[in-house]
Amino acid sequence: MEYQIKKPEGRLGILIPGLGAVATTFIAGVEAIRKGISQPIGSLTQMGHIRLGKRTENRNPLIKDFVPLANLNEIVFGGWDVYEDNVYEAAVNAKVLEPGLLHALKPELEAIQPMKAVFDKAYARNLDGTNVKEAATKYELAEALMEDMLNFKEANECDRLVIVWCGSTEVYTEVSDVHQTVEAFEEGLRNNDPRISPSMIYAYAAVKIGVPFANGAPNLTVDIPALVGLSKENGVAISGKDFKTGQTLMKTILAPGLQARALGIRGWFSSNILGNRDGLVLDDPENFKTKEVSKLGVLEDILRPDDNPELYGDIYHKVRINYYPPHGDNKESWDNIDIFGWLGYQMQIKINFLCRDSILAAPIVLDLALFTDLAQRAGMSGIQEWMSFYYKSPQTAEGLRPEHDIFKQLTKLQNTLRHMMGEDLITHLGLDYYQDLVESL
Amino acid sequence: MEYQIKKPEGRLGILIPGLGAVATTFIAGVEAIRKGISQPIGSLTQMGHIRLGKRTENRNPLIKDFVPLANLNEIVFGGWDVYEDNVYEAAVNAKVLEPGLLHALKPELEAIQPMKAVFDKAYARNLDGTNVKEAATKYELAEALMEDMLNFKEANECDRLVIVWCGSTEVYTEVSDVHQTVEAFEEGLRNNDPRISPSMIYAYAAVKIGVPFANGAPNLTVDIPALVGLSKENGVAISGKDFKTGQTLMKTILAPGLQARALGIRGWFSSNILGNRDGLVLDDPENFKTKEVSKLGVLEDILRPDDNPELYGDIYHKVRINYYPPHGDNKESWDNIDIFGWLGYQMQIKINFLCRDSILAAPIVLDLALFTDLAQRAGMSGIQEWMSFYYKSPQTAEGLRPEHDIFKQLTKLQNTLRHMMGEDLITHLGLDYYQDLVESL
Amino acid sequence: MEYQIKKPEGRLGILIPGLGAVATTFIAGVEAIRKGISQPIGSLTQMGHIRLGKRTENRNPLIKDFVPLANLNEIVFGGWDVYEDNVYEAAVNAKVLEPGLLHALKPELEAIQPMKAVFDKAYARNLDGTNVKEAATKYELAEALMEDMLNFKEANECDRLVIVWCGSTEVYTEVSDVHQTVEAFEEGLRNNDPRISPSMIYAYAAVKIGVPFANGAPNLTVDIPALVGLSKENGVAISGKDFKTGQTLMKTILAPGLQARALGIRGWFSSNILGNRDGLVLDDPENFKTKEVSKLGVLEDILRPDDNPELYGDIYHKVRINYYPPHGDNKESWDNIDIFGWLGYQMQIKINFLCRDSILAAPIVLDLALFTDLAQRAGMSGIQEWMSFYYKSPQTAEGLRPEHDIFKQLTKLQNTLRHMMGEDLITHLGLDYYQDLVESL
Amino acid sequence: MEYQIKKPEGRLGILIPGLGAVATTFIAGVEAIRKGISQPIGSLTQMGHIRLGKRTENRNPLIKDFVPLANLNEIVFGGWDVYEDNVYEAAVNAKVLEPGLLHALKPELEAIQPMKAVFDKAYARNLDGTNVKEAATKYELAEALMEDMLNFKEANECDRLVIVWCGSTEVYTEVSDVHQTVEAFEEGLRNNDPRISPSMIYAYAAVKIGVPFANGAPNLTVDIPALVGLSKENGVAISGKDFKTGQTLMKTILAPGLQARALGIRGWFSSNILGNRDGLVLDDPENFKTKEVSKLGVLEDILRPDDNPELYGDIYHKVRINYYPPHGDNKESWDNIDIFGWLGYQMQIKINFLCRDSILAAPIVLDLALFTDLAQRAGMSGIQEWMSFYYKSPQTAEGLRPEHDIFKQLTKLQNTLRHMMGEDLITHLGLDYYQDLVESL
Ligand SMILES: NC(=O)c1ccc[n+]([C@@H]2O[C@H](COP(=O)([O-])OP(=O)(O)OC[C@H]3O[C@@H](n4cnc5c(N)ncnc54)[C@H](O)[C@@H]3O)[C@@H](O)[C@H]2O)c1
Ligand SMILES: NC(=O)c1ccc[n+]([C@@H]2O[C@H](COP(=O)([O-])OP(=O)(O)OC[C@H]3O[C@@H](n4cnc5c(N)ncnc54)[C@H](O)[C@@H]3O)[C@@H](O)[C@H]2O)c1
Ligand SMILES: NC(=O)c1ccc[n+]([C@@H]2O[C@H](COP(=O)([O-])OP(=O)(O)OC[C@H]3O[C@@H](n4cnc5c(N)ncnc54)[C@H](O)[C@@H]3O)[C@@H](O)[C@H]2O)c1
Ligand SMILES: NC(=O)c1ccc[n+]([C@@H]2O[C@H](COP(=O)([O-])OP(=O)(O)OC[C@H]3O[C@@H](n4cnc5c(N)ncnc54)[C@H](O)[C@@H]3O)[C@@H](O)[C@H]2O)c1
Ligand code: NA
Ligand code: NA
Repeated sequence: MEYQIKKPEGRLGILIPGLGAVATTFIAGVEAIRKGISQPIGSLTQMGHIRLGKRTENRNPLIKDFVPLANLNEIVFGGWDVYEDNVYEAAVNAKVLEPGLLHALKPELEAIQPMKAVFDKAYARNLDGTNVKEAATKYELAEALMEDMLNFKEANECDRLVIVWCGSTEVYTEVSDVHQTVEAFEEGLRNNDPRISPSMIYAYAAVKIGVPFANGAPNLTVDIPALVGLSKENGVAISGKDFKTGQTLMKTILAPGLQARALGIRGWFSSNILGNRDGLVLDDPENFKTKEVSKLGVLEDILRPDDNPELYGDIYHKVRINYYPPHGDNKESWDNIDIFGWLGYQMQIKINFLCRDSILAAPIVLDLALFTDLAQRAGMSGIQEWMSFYYKSPQTAEGLRPEHDIFKQLTKLQNTLRHMMGEDLITHLGLDYYQDLVESL
Repeated sequence: MEYQIKKPEGRLGILIPGLGAVATTFIAGVEAIRKGISQPIGSLTQMGHIRLGKRTENRNPLIKDFVPLANLNEIVFGGWDVYEDNVYEAAVNAKVLEPGLLHALKPELEAIQPMKAVFDKAYARNLDGTNVKEAATKYELAEALMEDMLNFKEANECDRLVIVWCGSTEVYTEVSDVHQTVEAFEEGLRNNDPRISPSMIYAYAAVKIGVPFANGAPNLTVDIPALVGLSKENGVAISGKDFKTGQTLMKTILAPGLQARALGIRGWFSSNILGNRDGLVLDDPENFKTKEVSKLGVLEDILRPDDNPELYGDIYHKVRINYYPPHGDNKESWDNIDIFGWLGYQMQIKINFLCRDSILAAPIVLDLALFTDLAQRAGMSGIQEWMSFYYKSPQTAEGLRPEHDIFKQLTKLQNTLRHMMGEDLITHLGLDYYQDLVESL
Repeated sequence: MEYQIKKPEGRLGILIPGLGAVATTFIAGVEAIRKGISQPIGSLTQMGHIRLGKRTENRNPLIKDFVPLANLNEIVFGGWDVYEDNVYEAAVNAKVLEPGLLHALKPELEAIQPMKAVFDKAYARNLDGTNVKEAATKYELAEALMEDMLNFKEANECDRLVIVWCGSTEVYTEVSDVHQTVEAFEEGLRNNDPRISPSMIYAYAAVKIGVPFANGAPNLTVDIPALVGLSKENGVAISGKDFKTGQTLMKTILAPGLQARALGIRGWFSSNILGNRDGLVLDDPENFKTKEVSKLGVLEDILRPDDNPELYGDIYHKVRINYYPPHGDNKESWDNIDIFGWLGYQMQIKINFLCRDSILAAPIVLDLALFTDLAQRAGMSGIQEWMSFYYKSPQTAEGLRPEHDIFKQLTKLQNTLRHMMGEDLITHLGLDYYQDLVESL
Repeated sequence: MEYQIKKPEGRLGILIPGLGAVATTFIAGVEAIRKGISQPIGSLTQMGHIRLGKRTENRNPLIKDFVPLANLNEIVFGGWDVYEDNVYEAAVNAKVLEPGLLHALKPELEAIQPMKAVFDKAYARNLDGTNVKEAATKYELAEALMEDMLNFKEANECDRLVIVWCGSTEVYTEVSDVHQTVEAFEEGLRNNDPRISPSMIYAYAAVKIGVPFANGAPNLTVDIPALVGLSKENGVAISGKDFKTGQTLMKTILAPGLQARALGIRGWFSSNILGNRDGLVLDDPENFKTKEVSKLGVLEDILRPDDNPELYGDIYHKVRINYYPPHGDNKESWDNIDIFGWLGYQMQIKINFLCRDSILAAPIVLDLALFTDLAQRAGMSGIQEWMSFYYKSPQTAEGLRPEHDIFKQLTKLQNTLRHMMGEDLITHLGLDYYQDLVESL
């Protein structure tokens, strides 16, 4: 039995608020891939396989041959930014990709001019771009964004749109009454309530007119009751928050592994050096505070110290980010993990990751765009928890603990795809391969 | 619905061929735990939890409270070795545990005297112990071992026995005709066929009289058609091969994580230093050869280069073991992993693991003993593939590719336990938490 | 020709303000060495050799057989602390040495009771001990310390005394008018001038009555014009500041090596984790500030960016100290050094030092005590720059740049010893081994 | 007083047997530097300073402003190789420098065609080039080389020549009777004695006609009594062997530092991965043997276990080279150093060097060429021990132990330059800065 999923006919428009390092690496990459110059390494939708049926069936298709995804050649890019640089200029400034590669893509990238942004300096004090919309109320700004979206769709002859937030991290805010209901929120938009951030305005505009929305930054954005409610009403797929890359990615790989073997953890010291714009901002202890809180949570959620006090009840977990310009976008991290085993004997694991931040984030943008479009065509509305795999702080239904273990996240993602296509879920039980065992049970 | 599992009443005898570093660390550890001095860190059967039902049910019991396992206080230890040292002396020589701890356990450990071993210098050229059985044929040796087992059971008033091989790694052998059928094998025992190794004689003796058998070394032992067949006939649970610890453990944690994200791998260089008796033996290129073959396989089986040629088709994988006495049993490993992401951009991961070999192996001996006894009581006979979690080269049904991904192995192990106890298998689908989604599908 | 050096006859009293981790590790160590239990590893005076004459003479005596040093068996220990713990109790609290070793030395260590300290909470806010002298003026406190010294000398039948400051680091102060002349300083003592720190009072008392003084902390102490002047007047040897151990030791080994080869440096990132009392204090950004300034200077002084702008003119040097309790006194450091060579091509050096702070500092205390006593007997007064080898911020004559290159420091130290004993200085020229060369020049 | 050093007038020809990775990186680099594209980082003759006189004089000129060296613009390059590739092609194959840079230098590099080599497959089994001289005897080959040298000198209007061996490492040979005297050697040349290697023929040809010679490989070459004798007779400067780069460079920096502080060493494990042609050759255990012996010697010579048995008498030193193609010429090394300090307490230092072999070697070729030419003009003949600084196995007068400590080597080099120019040698004594001290001595 196969579910009703609308075919991905016609063009898909991917709209991105924030055309910085991640977004330009993503767009330039897709252009290079379409030209056959490069490969979409790191993207499950393009290069990942999925096992179907029993092991002995040897069915292991590419994901993109299994579920009906938009084709890369049917994608159009657009976006907003507070700076006027086109995507070529922005990519050159970001210094992630080699000049030679960017040069080969210059015409395509130059053609993408950012639309005027909805912006509020109170939410990003370090930015001073002028490519910004002006209007009397936040409500009017939201209307202007809806117009941008619809104009873009028409001008580019798109069948569907999807939005992925790649803008700068906004200052910390908590959910308050203005975020609770659609009514309160729309009232706030009209009153210019300061608790409504720019990213929320983008998210509202999208969900209002039925455009699905994914959030790559740690700010709340679409993770407020008003917009969750609206997304269900309007049948719109949403997800967030914060692309999972680098050290946190490693942590959600390694911690489940140690836990699988019931090895104890006494301390985990994580240090980073990075020299890009993000690094400069996070060097300020105040800005780092927000990021720190989110980064520290990961370990606790995986290890559950309450359930395992002897193993994980007394972990000293510390995360440090140090601005170090010599390395530019090439973030480097060190982890020192103090573990203990049988009878409490101590061991140490030390990991040094010479990574590239935007290179790890770009394929996530692609997968989120394509899977979100798929979910939307499958009629799945509201929070798409099965995309937790891609996020540092997965957005979940209220009261539901987020899952951080990357392997459980992957199982969830794959079983969701199997479920959508009417295939058996995989439990790795496999007793049936040992037939007489099963009979004996 | 719950399956029929015999209750773990009475005492369980754990018999170990090979009372060296791993076995004595295991036995001393259980004694220390029984005295309340130490904790069974690293053991799932003692400290692991298992989630049952839906996330919102918050059912997460200890495994030992969920499945009926033998109680640590109802265990008796015995074993064979080619040296006459009792377990106290052998543990002191192994230099794994602190003298202070061993001293506190001296009476219990001294009481365990090794029975005379079945031994053949052709299979372990470096050993020259004299605590060895003599007999005209291998068949008579097998009979002597059966007598040892039955005598031990009676003398120690055991209800059940289980055997875990912790003897030295035997020289490399391949399956040949003498290993194919029970008849050919028994004929070989009578003819003193040189292709029958000592560990096979132990395994035969055990399976013949219904004692389940787990194999912690890479030698074939119970992984031959003759003994697999006999185990099914006699309703005996068996499993193997080679305890999964240290660098290989890390590899089966990390490789699935990189693969999950479709990150490419160009090279993986693994270097080890260790200074115990194992290290000395493996410093000889010839001896290392066998271990190398087995260690290299892990990566290939997880990454499936055939299915993913662009990502994993050209990995240069190298494993080196270097004898380095200053570190003793404190094995230390370095991994250098050359990965590539979006558009082929390269990154590096470097891991330095200051580990302790026998500390990681000891809780595996405990879990294998208790789970094997459980399987036996549940009437599960033949290969127990669900224990792959503990092995570097999991023994599987013929024609079935072994699973090395530690997270799939864990899912398999846990779902097997759930299945045995009549609980729902867990697929991490979780769409039902988002009720209207499910309706919409 | 040999200089007039008074023979080391009779007993030498080593008095230490601050009986904490370093001091107790030092004292317990000397006791263990005297008992023949342990060896004075890390001490040049006990284990170092010195080459004399030409290479072909093969003269390479132990330093202690070359210069007349006090014998370890002729040493008596004493000290002051704000806490009343005797040296045994303080050593147990410091958790540096194994309980077993301390137990074997208990009687000797218990016998050393700290004298009442001169203390001022304004200079060490975290301490609250009560073993503190009370007096109306700082002048009277100085007099009380002189009395302590003389009493100790008499009670312990010492021929000579030497003082090594091992007290906590005091808060940052700069040299001001009260520190300029002996007159102003003594006036300040009488007026309780707040700019006179406790360590200065100890130093004044010592120098006043002819006791040489070495300073192991970064505070000014004896590094003020008033006390330098007084030391020359009274013929007293003095030196400082801050024992050179751990990461800084490594830096002053490695930086000269890179510079020797004219390799450029673009960045040097140094990160530390430590979990002892020092670490807790330095976790506070304000306290760290002082230490940071001093630590950063080392590199600049060795590399001289002004003279080598292309190689060292643009180094991003960052030092971080992170409190991390799981490691206790076992400080661990990571250095990431970004270097460049021929045509600007970049390379990286990464160093991970699993070190032990007090173990590295203790032999320095011994060497400083013995060499300072030697200098005093040789009639060398004022600043002993030849002991720069042992210090992070060597005290020098005004206007003289300190030398941080550990190899130049060592050459200076050894040539000073040769000079004192009338031996030829060594220049490593060695052309005379190639006789005809010399003739041809 | 200044020595008589001939001025460096006219052009200097640098001739190189072996136009492989190192030689082409050197030549291309000098071309780039002459064009102002790049800088001669890593070269003391170009970027190093030398301190003169007392610290307070502040005299610290560039070495090239202090001693009369050949100017880079007055250099001409030539060489021999068994392959016909010109320097541009050879540099492209070596994959050390970026294609863009090589492209900019194409005309200059293409112009350098290798002369036919003197070659013998018995000394380098893996090479099969055909650009090789043919002649009846080795004596005639030597004559052909002398002709090459004189022709080159004339054709390129050179005033002087110097030769630096950058050819492949030859198979291991020991000094025997044919190498003892000039007579025996010339007799051997005429008899085609197999013990005379190709590199010896180059060296003989050079020394015979007065061309100074430096040897960058570990083979004997000019380090035989016959050629040492001839060099003195003919007034020719010679030196060797084996450029000091990478891990050995680090070892001769770090080991003296640890020794300076009398810290003990228990083990030193050095592991390398490299993927260039050298790496492939050294992967063969037999070939590695020779290199291993030489690499292991360094530590022993610095630490002198005989003089310091408690500190260095029981070091387990192991060096491993592993072929690992993914890294190409970017050699990477790991060192694990087990040290011990005060009372025997243990610590560990771990170094990971992401280096570039040829980038470190190229400036050494330049310095050796220029300093050798200087020595020759200064009339210094025979072994130039003061260039030990650049070599892994410094060539010394018979019976003289080589100095491996890089800081003593540097002092020797600098004091030699000071001596040549009539400046005071520097001893770092510095007591005169503390005037009254000196008087008191
Ligand atoms: N690996 C990663 O790089 C990674 C991982 C997780 C999360 N993230 C998040 O992704 C986001 C983008 O990262 P980046 O490295 O590309 O940063 P960046 O600073 O290079 O780019 C952000 C861009 O957003 C623009 N912007 C800011 N506010 C805007 C607004 N209101 N409307 C439109 N444009 C706006 C900025 O002008 C800038 O060009 C950040 O929030 C970052 O925290 C990145
Ligand atoms: N982490 C680990 O330590 C680890 C991991 C995987 C596998 N293993 C395997 O576990 C086994 C035990 O390891 P160990 O470190 O304890 O080694 P060990 O050398 O300390 O002990 C092995 C013991 O087996 C005995 N023995 C050998 N042949 C025998 C025979 N025929 N009958 C009875 N006794 C015999 C030896 O005398 C010795 O006492 C080895 O095969 C090893 O490869 C260990
Ligand atoms: N490797 C090293 O451990 C190292 C290296 C360089 C410098 N140092 C310096 O050496 C000093 C000692 O280090 P530690 O690790 O032993 O510290 P610690 O905190 O263990 O000991 C310092 C002791 O000084 C005492 N004290 C403080 N003020 C005093 C006063 N006015 N009079 C008498 N006693 C006083 C304290 O009560 C304490 O017992 C510190 O200044 C530290 O910065 C240590
Ligand atoms: N850091 C370093 O790269 C380093 C350090 C120390 C020593 N070395 C030594 O320097 C030498 C050159 O290293 P490389 O990396 O350039 O090696 P390479 O293999 O790239 O180059 C060596 C060249 O010598 C040529 N050759 C061999 N025998 C010859 C002969 N008889 N006459 C003329 N040419 C001959 C070969 O054809 C080849 O082109 C080697 O001996 C190496 O061991 C290199
Ligand atoms: Na840090
Ligand atoms: Na290795």
